[in-house]
Amino acid sequence: MTDEQLPSALPETARTRHRRLREQGSRERARLDAVLEAGFLCHLGVVIDGTPMVVPTVYGSDGRHLYFHGSVASRSLVASPEAAVCVTVTHVDGLVLARSVFEHGVNYRSAMIYGVPRLVTDPEEKLAGLWRLTEQAAPGQWDYARQPNRKELAATALLALSLEEASVKIRTGAPEDGDGPDAALGIWAGVLPLNSTWGEPEADPLLPTGIAPPAHIAARGNTPAD
Amino acid sequence: MTDEQLPSALPETARTRHRRLREQGSRERARLDAVLEAGFLCHLGVVIDGTPMVVPTVYGSDGRHLYFHGSVASRSLVASPEAAVCVTVTHVDGLVLARSVFEHGVNYRSAMIYGVPRLVTDPEEKLAGLWRLTEQAAPGQWDYARQPNRKELAATALLALSLEEASVKIRTGAPEDGDGPDAALGIWAGVLPLNSTWGEPEADPLLPTGIAPPAHIAARGNTPAD
Repeated sequence: MTDEQLPSALPETARTRHRRLREQGSRERARLDAVLEAGFLCHLGVVIDGTPMVVPTVYGSDGRHLYFHGSVASRSLVASPEAAVCVTVTHVDGLVLARSVFEHGVNYRSAMIYGVPRLVTDPEEKLAGLWRLTEQAAPGQWDYARQPNRKELAATALLALSLEEASVKIRTGAPEDGDGPDAALGIWAGVLPLNSTWGEPEADPLLPTGIAPPAHIAARGNTPAD
Repeated sequence: MTDEQLPSALPETARTRHRRLREQGSRERARLDAVLEAGFLCHLGVVIDGTPMVVPTVYGSDGRHLYFHGSVASRSLVASPEAAVCVTVTHVDGLVLARSVFEHGVNYRSAMIYGVPRLVTDPEEKLAGLWRLTEQAAPGQWDYARQPNRKELAATALLALSLEEASVKIRTGAPEDGDGPDAALGIWAGVLPLNSTWGEPEADPLLPTGIAPPAHIAARGNTPAD
């Protein structure tokens, strides 16, 4: 682990240069952080026997690394240390409904991170990474629930991916054919928002009566999730 | 195109065999169809220069193929015909909050499809695929909006991926430590649902007054999105 701050501008590499839709591209690190902080599920891309595999998995981010984990028996994880991965986090914010089918699209925020993950072996960093991962999805749970014991820690593989090589794409706002010839067609155009919200907590049927959800869980009901 | 029905059981291959969490695995085609029908955004994994790239993109599915598209200039698309891809569709349904951090998890429905996509060149299939793609995200829009002209069709690359090699993983319900030693800890456990809903349509600021959203859009406001 290092205490150095990453530069505030994301470095441009062959993979992160935005070849198309340049206006949507952002190399600002603050935007990367915001996209990562808004979620907890990523799609991890690995190459196995020459073919790609894309696995949904939870993550935690501390602004310098993205942490993800799994069983030490997991196929995608075993393949990923020492091998290049691409991790993508996407939030869909709405449908862009234009006058023409061709101009239809999606409002979204997406981050792509490239690199070779490192298997975390330092016990202190492993605990810190698992803390981050748990707190990213469910803030307050690490202190509330029973924390991992030695056997559970040994059964968990934690990987750290540097956030150095990353790109962000964000699309917001109305469709783009509002000042073109199709505007005369009289077709309704706009955005249909897609909202992600937490529901009310549902108790495990095996839970004895009299145990209420803790405040950090109860307070999230009906709040935005990203 | 073929009119043959795919077999109702998904074939087991080295990639789709569930090595872990076998109980979560499903090779039933009906479940695959349900996961695909519930969404419109996938994560497309391709290998470029030996390293993976995971790109969010919209799709349409007709039960035999998954269609996805993009600009003919797109890097991930140009790489994908004739090359293996993995397409993953994931719906997150909630957080599984267990007594122990180790047993925390996510309720989700996820499909992974493996194969080599085919560039669609037949004009009839291309139109049908684009229809499917548009209708999957916004049912009713194909007939309502202006349909693609010849120039727009030429600028669009459409790819078809067979649904033959696919796997589905679904997790539902309560955490799994309700009948173990941790149940005695008195810790609340259950599920925090994550809901995805459409918002009210937002008109393009450039839209002249007096054009109301069509019924197929207006009716979706405040309805579940997956």
